[in-house]
Formats: sequence, structure tokens, C-alpha cells
Amino acid sequence: MELNPKAIRGSFVDFVDDPFFRAETECVRYFQDGLMILEKGKILEFDSYANLSDRYANLPIETYEGLILPGFIDLHVHYPQTEMIAACGEQLLAWLEKYVFPTELRFQDPDYARKIASFFLDELLRNGTTTAVVLTTIFPGSVEVLFEEAQKRSMRLIAGQMLMSRNAPEFLINEPHKAYAENCELIHKWHGKDRLLCAITPRFAITSTEIELSLAGKLKAEFPDVYIHTHLSENLKEIEFTSSLFPDCIDYLNVYEQFGLVSDRSIFAHCVHLSNSAFQRLSASGAAIAYCPTSNLFLGSGLFKLDQAKSEAYPIKVGLGSDVGAGTSFSQLKSMGEAYKISQLQGQSLSAFKAFYLATLGGAKALSLDSKLGNFAQAKEADFIVLEPNATPLLRLRNSSYTGDSFGDLPGDLYRDLDAISSQLFGLMILGDERAIKATYVNGELWQSSD
Amino acid sequence: MELNPKAIRGSFVDFVDDPFFRAETECVRYFQDGLMILEKGKILEFDSYANLSDRYANLPIETYEGLILPGFIDLHVHYPQTEMIAACGEQLLAWLEKYVFPTELRFQDPDYARKIASFFLDELLRNGTTTAVVLTTIFPGSVEVLFEEAQKRSMRLIAGQMLMSRNAPEFLINEPHKAYAENCELIHKWHGKDRLLCAITPRFAITSTEIELSLAGKLKAEFPDVYIHTHLSENLKEIEFTSSLFPDCIDYLNVYEQFGLVSDRSIFAHCVHLSNSAFQRLSASGAAIAYCPTSNLFLGSGLFKLDQAKSEAYPIKVGLGSDVGAGTSFSQLKSMGEAYKISQLQGQSLSAFKAFYLATLGGAKALSLDSKLGNFAQAKEADFIVLEPNATPLLRLRNSSYTGDSFGDLPGDLYRDLDAISSQLFGLMILGDERAIKATYVNGELWQSSD
Repeated sequence: MELNPKAIRGSFVDFVDDPFFRAETECVRYFQDGLMILEKGKILEFDSYANLSDRYANLPIETYEGLILPGFIDLHVHYPQTEMIAACGEQLLAWLEKYVFPTELRFQDPDYARKIASFFLDELLRNGTTTAVVLTTIFPGSVEVLFEEAQKRSMRLIAGQMLMSRNAPEFLINEPHKAYAENCELIHKWHGKDRLLCAITPRFAITSTEIELSLAGKLKAEFPDVYIHTHLSENLKEIEFTSSLFPDCIDYLNVYEQFGLVSDRSIFAHCVHLSNSAFQRLSASGAAIAYCPTSNLFLGSGLFKLDQAKSEAYPIKVGLGSDVGAGTSFSQLKSMGEAYKISQLQGQSLSAFKAFYLATLGGAKALSLDSKLGNFAQAKEADFIVLEPNATPLLRLRNSSYTGDSFGDLPGDLYRDLDAISSQLFGLMILGDERAIKATYVNGELWQSSD
Repeated sequence: MELNPKAIRGSFVDFVDDPFFRAETECVRYFQDGLMILEKGKILEFDSYANLSDRYANLPIETYEGLILPGFIDLHVHYPQTEMIAACGEQLLAWLEKYVFPTELRFQDPDYARKIASFFLDELLRNGTTTAVVLTTIFPGSVEVLFEEAQKRSMRLIAGQMLMSRNAPEFLINEPHKAYAENCELIHKWHGKDRLLCAITPRFAITSTEIELSLAGKLKAEFPDVYIHTHLSENLKEIEFTSSLFPDCIDYLNVYEQFGLVSDRSIFAHCVHLSNSAFQRLSASGAAIAYCPTSNLFLGSGLFKLDQAKSEAYPIKVGLGSDVGAGTSFSQLKSMGEAYKISQLQGQSLSAFKAFYLATLGGAKALSLDSKLGNFAQAKEADFIVLEPNATPLLRLRNSSYTGDSFGDLPGDLYRDLDAISSQLFGLMILGDERAIKATYVNGELWQSSD
């Protein structure tokens, strides 16, 4: 890593507050001509070029066209499912049996696992995702190689060994006490090393015995700043099966509650079918939801109630998950696009600023990492991307025809600027993909694809 | 156009029957090593390379890697909405007012209209669409330039002048008798010229007076082989408004029925909210539905009931429409991907072969043009595309990991091949875009982008 400071100049967009609860124009920050000073992987200073340039006149400056945003945060993704993305024809439980479980078996071979981990992390970075919360397999080696490859790339990554002890093929069953010991070892070795953090990851209630969930709770009590990351209320048949396995629990969330797995460092993927009570209890706990739009559509799981999760009365921390391989893209732009459509189907509307908030500062808050990630505040880690709003001929035509939109009635240049930026970002979330990611910086350094 | 025959060699996939009503393996045709002989824009012969090569040993052969399929057919797309694709925040009626109508005004300038028509047609071809049913504006010049540009490209295109006489801004209102005369002139000039065909296109019932619909019916009676192309039952508010405007009609479809606009050369876009009766009457009439998945999600219109439209009891001809600018892509691969998700949300499953059928032979049948288009039968017009199943690193990894799927239990090489082809096509419809279109042939000639 370079020890000397350097500077990035261009148009910067980030968020300083949650646009679901305040006027968007107060939450988004835009410097048409901004300057960001990087040192040792962190943001030393960030302001308009005019305000900063004199003091850093001698620094080398990299200037970018396009829009510079914080790196995307992916709250839920399965790296062993990379190769079986787009598997046809089933909903959740049958899809797991038919496609996922046989694929995960391959990850008992650490060499194979490393090959996929490497591809997976590069694919995230190619798509502008710099932080990910990742599920693995029951094989400890599959976790080791993922952490090693993320460490090589200086990425922020949260992962743990998958816990499974029933309702799965024999080859994916791990004895809970053995898994407990393996998890302890992984946590000791990796949690807090460089930018890596650990999570305790029961696959979902269905594949865990009560003993295993108890041991997960014990682990959580012993390592309170380790995350819990699992699935919750994705699919109606899954919920029904869970209820039959845990008849004493009042609902699915209550299974995790019973074992001490619900706190402000818990991330629950999906939450498509939650009762009002579960929404309220999640809000009170401080736990976060990983909203996975492309996956919810691909598996036909249902329409996530984003408006309820972001209600004034019981607000919940929400970020976006790609959920590859049930998700259909590593691109959080695609997650945003499908989230827009899911909102539209429910008669709601998801603005570009709200969507990009979910993928940046919203994700950082969901992880309680907003003191380190999510926007360009001083001293935060320098993970950022350069977006090209005119990445395709169609986007170029569309943007060149833009004549003003939602904030057009507000006075002043800033609002006109925000209006145009909002339109460009919306274009990217509906029409964009990895071709729009011109550069990805991780920990202050430009990532370069190996292919 | 070259008068001498030429040959295309590669792996060919097309359909000989409707996989919604027969076993898929009986409907799809696959030559791992096929040869297609082209002459004067038509298919002179098509068979395996082994069977044909001796007889055409002296022909120049172009050999392609990938999969060669019939060109896609887009049953519903608005060319004047190209530039305002991805306009944020509204459902149908408000979206029309806010974004569409102001944009369509620009098309009173034929030079501007030609610029967009040219971009639009190239964008279709870049995405592998060789036949399109296109909506225009009320300005006759906007239709002229579209036909002229399509003629230059030797494309099959069906279009007409948009009819609008109420419930729209003053600048988009055309007097019905004037519109009738203008349509007559366009039909005389363009219908059947080269590969161009005309349609009578009331925008939708809401923007037409009874007089206008009567004149549309008169036009249809005078030119019975001209198409009718309009919208039907897209959005709940639209349906309610229509019902208030035509209180004597039993439902929305009945408006068009009353004026003689429903026949086997009618194409109705959307049909998201149809009663059983309307489904049955459409079936009996022989009219076709343009199913527009990306649009139905983007505007939050609802979930099209594909299974009901393809029911044994009352089958309806269905093809796919991109519906740009409410649709979010010119790519029929994207239409198929979103159609899959819409089926999944309804607990159904849409196979790759069914989806590709809809975009090829299904579209041709919907237009009653299946004697000329839709597959590689002898004497049909030579519109075809070359698809690259490994168009991105992710697709390459996915396809290389494929180990057998839905037809895997059937005997013989052919079924193993179909199984693999089905998986590759499914990968493309979920993950692919225009990057997967390696070549587009129109009327026997390779299209080349001007940019």
C-alpha cells in the first residue's frame, strides 16, 4: 500500500443521512468538482476542489469523468453458488435440493474453493461491490480460502462457516459440536484481521437442530461482536416447514430469538413474509434486513415490503443483497432496478437516491460499520467506484434527452444538479450493469481485473 | 442484395411447433452441425451439414461458433419513447402525462424523428430483433421516416400512424377524419412494400373518440389484411377510466369489438387484467397478445397470466413485446428473463424453450406471418442471429459447470444435447444481454452497426 497521500478529483455523490426519513435533498451530498485526499487506505479529507486544492497542490491527482460513489455493499451472497447462478425451474426448497446442495459438495476441495472464491471476489469488484457479507459451506477450508483471497484484495468481508446438521444430504451435514469448535478457530484466526470480520451462519432454521442453534447462541455470547447472518421468512413453504420443526416458537423469527441470535449485529436475508409483530421485534432488536430483489423474483418468493421495513413507527435497518446464486446478478445496480419494480408492483415508488442509499450508507448502517464505511466522511475507509452514466449508446441517448425532473421546481443550481444526478442514477439502476463501473477502488487502491 | 447463394454453418436451434401444447423435445429442432443455404434473402435449404454439404461443396461458407436462432420478433414497441426509457416514479397514466406526451411532440420534426428511428432500428438489430411491431406518433412524417429507415435495413416492420383524438395534450390531438385520410395514404404507400406492413393503431380506448374508433373500423374493413395494434387492460386505473368512457361496453375488450377491431390480425399489448370471458373471446377471435414483461414490472401494471393465455381450452397466440420506453430493454432476452420471474411469482415455471418460442415462432404465429418468419423452414425469410452462450465471464463459468438437467433422464445423444442447449438458453435469458448477440442477419445479409 502506498504510504504517501494521493488525490482523486471528479464529481462525487454520497449520502449523509437516510432519505427514507428526511428530504432527499438534505441526505444526498454532491460536489460537481470535488477532491478526495487518500492516505493509508483512508479518506484524509473530502471537499470541493476549490476548497482543498491549494493545500494539496503538490499531490498527484487522478481525475475521473462520471460519478464517484462509495463502493456498493452486498449484505447477502453465497460464494459457492456462483457457478450455478440461473438454475432453472424451481422455488426455494426444491432449488436447494436439486442445484445448490450438489454444488456445495464441490467445496470440500480447497483448491476448487479457492478458484471460485477468486472468481467470485473479482466479480463483486467488477460490479462495484467492495464489501460483502458472504455465506460459504460446511467445509472450514472453504472459509479459509475465501478469507485469504479477500485479504489479498484488501477487501472488507464478513463470512463464517455454514452450520447445517439436518434436512440436508449426508455430505452436507456437520456435527454441531465439531462445527462449534471449527467456528471458534475461524473466529480466533480471522475476526478483525485486516478488514475481515466473522459471522455465525446457520443456513436457516430448517437445517439446524436445536443443539446447533444453542451452540450458535453460545458462540455469539462468547464473541459478542461477531455477526449472525442467516435467512428468515423467504418462502411460504419454508416458513411452514420451519413452523413444523419448531412448534413452540410463535413464528420463524422467534426461533432465532429463542437461541439469542437476534441483536444489532444480526443480518436476516429476505424477510419477504413477516407479520407486523416480527417487523416490530426486528426494529426493537436493531437487527438488519438484507433485501434481495433479484432473488425474490427469480425464486418467486414474493414482494418484500420495503415501505413497512422503513416505516416511521418501527424502522428497520435495510441494505441490499445480490443473493447470488438465487439472485440473478452480482450488480447492485440490478438489485436496485428489480427493487424499483417490486415497489411499483405494490403501488409504491423507489427513488434513485433511496436505492443508492440502500446499497451504500444503508448497508454500512445495517452492519453497524457506518463509522468506517458507506460515505466519504473523513477517516472512513477509501472504498469507492466511478460510474459512467453513459455506459451504453442507449444510456447516452437517454441522458442527452433529459430535460428536468423531480426537483426541477426547487431553486438554484444545486437542485438542478441533483435533479440531473438523480435521473442519471435512475438510468443506471434500470439500464446499467458492470459496463457502467469504470473503476473500483478498494482500501484506497485501484482494483485491476486479472482477466 | 447478393443473388448468388451462400451458406451458413454452425449449431442451429429453432422451433417447429408450440411447446406450450406438446412435449418440448418434439417442438425444438437442433442441428449440432447444421448448414443453411441462403438465396435472395430466403432459406433455400436447411439440414445437417452431413446431409447437405456435398451438394453445396462450391458455396462460400460462413461458420459460426455459438447458437444460431431465428431473429427475435418484438410484438410491441414505441419508437418515439426510445430516448425517455427509464423514466422514474409513476404508473401508466401519470407516466404518459409526465414523460411520454412531451417526448412525442418532438416527432413533429421529421429530421428529429429520423435520427431516433435510425437509432431505434439499430438498437433492435444490436439486440437480435429482426421484426418489430412499432407504435409511432400522430405525425405522419414520423411514420414515413420509420418506414424509410426500416426499408434501408431490409427489415420486416409493421407500423402505422398513432390515432389520438381526446384525453391528451392539445399538441397530440389529431382530427379523426384527417387521421383517417393520412392513414389511407400511408397504407397505400407502404403496406406490402418490400418487407413493410401497416397497422391501424389507436393509442388506446382512452385517447380515441367513438368517431375515431368507427373510422378505424372503416379503415380495417377497407384494408382487411392491415393489422390492428393497440393496448388492452394494462393498468387498473386505465381500465376504470375506459369503463367510464364507454359505459355501454361490457368490458375493455368489448370497446374494440364494438368497432370491428378484433380479428386474427389484431395485436393487443399487455392484457394483464383480463376476465375469463375476455380470454375466451380473444381465443375465439384469433387475436394475439403482446406480452410485455419488463414493462409490466417497471410500471407496476401487474402479473400477466401466461398460463391462462396458453390454456388448452382457450389458447391465445402470444408473443413478447419489449414495450420500450415502459419496457426496460430492447433485448428480448431481458423480456424472457422477466417473464420467467413473473411466472415464478405465480407459482409457475417458464422453460427456456417456451420463452425462446415466444420470441421467435410464437411471435410469427401471433402476426399470422409464420409462413414467412419464425423458424428455418425452407423458403422462409432469412432473419437469424448468432448467440454466444459464454458472453460474459460469469456465463462462461456457469456453462462450464453444467452437469445435466431437465431432460437428463431421456436416452440418447440428442436429449443430452437438448438438455445442454436448454441450460445455455436459460443462462442467456436470465444473465444475457446484447453482448450475447454476436451477429444479426436480416433478409440474408449480415447487419453491421454504424457506430
